[in-house]
Amino acid sequence: MRIHEMTAAECDQVLAGADFGRLACARHDQPYIVPVHFYYDEQERCLYSFATLGRKIEWMRENPKVCLAIDEIADRFHWTTVLVFGRYEEVREADDISQAHRRALQLFRQRPEWWLPAAAKVAGGEEHHSPVVYRIHIDRLSGRRAGKSI
Amino acid sequence: MRIHEMTAAECDQVLAGADFGRLACARHDQPYIVPVHFYYDEQERCLYSFATLGRKIEWMRENPKVCLAIDEIADRFHWTTVLVFGRYEEVREADDISQAHRRALQLFRQRPEWWLPAAAKVAGGEEHHSPVVYRIHIDRLSGRRAGKSI
Repeated sequence: MRIHEMTAAECDQVLAGADFGRLACARHDQPYIVPVHFYYDEQERCLYSFATLGRKIEWMRENPKVCLAIDEIADRFHWTTVLVFGRYEEVREADDISQAHRRALQLFRQRPEWWLPAAAKVAGGEEHHSPVVYRIHIDRLSGRRAGKSI
Repeated sequence: MRIHEMTAAECDQVLAGADFGRLACARHDQPYIVPVHFYYDEQERCLYSFATLGRKIEWMRENPKVCLAIDEIADRFHWTTVLVFGRYEEVREADDISQAHRRALQLFRQRPEWWLPAAAKVAGGEEHHSPVVYRIHIDRLSGRRAGKSI
């Protein structure tokens, strides 16, 4: 089996076709992983997503550096992994980024099922929070693809 | 949809049935995710794995704090995620941990296909490194399960 470094265009193509990945954030050198659904905005080169207030959001507010992994795994010998290195930014209803906020809400309305996992309440929990809309600015993309040929 | 916090026993059960996950490490507050195959040693409460020398190993040598995510995703409404928070330790052929090293090698021989992804050479790369065997000591387990019922 050979593993190939993917070109920027190939990474971009995988990202454009994806809406799910694993997001890692870190605080005090302790990493933390969460599954996320997102929308890739190719024009703005960022990923939109949202979550209820919790550890992920608190940690990313403190340290905006994140890594998002998108996998396409057919089997052990045929797989693609694209990594996004980027920065967290919260999308608030402030004037300066109201356009981004409107855009994010518009996107989520197009895919209403996205709301469910992130906004679902943990059984027994009493907390109710408004969803936090955020975007990940893409600083760098990298990818690897494995196949049996060459 | 309701999301349930899993008990320690439930988390352990998921871990015992898994051999693949996403490992996040971090350096200078920048997280990094890689897919890994592992073997869970229930007696020692640690996960064995290996990799060729590269960014992941370099980062974990510098900062041993890691997070491993194991997912079982049937669909958006039925999923399980277990998180392992732990510490990286390299398994060398030194006398003090030779037993762990032997045990790791024995495990990998039982599943020879594990060697392939981690030991595969990136096309065009000229570097050849011996695989690094390591284990993740489990400090804490947590898990969430989602389902439509309840």
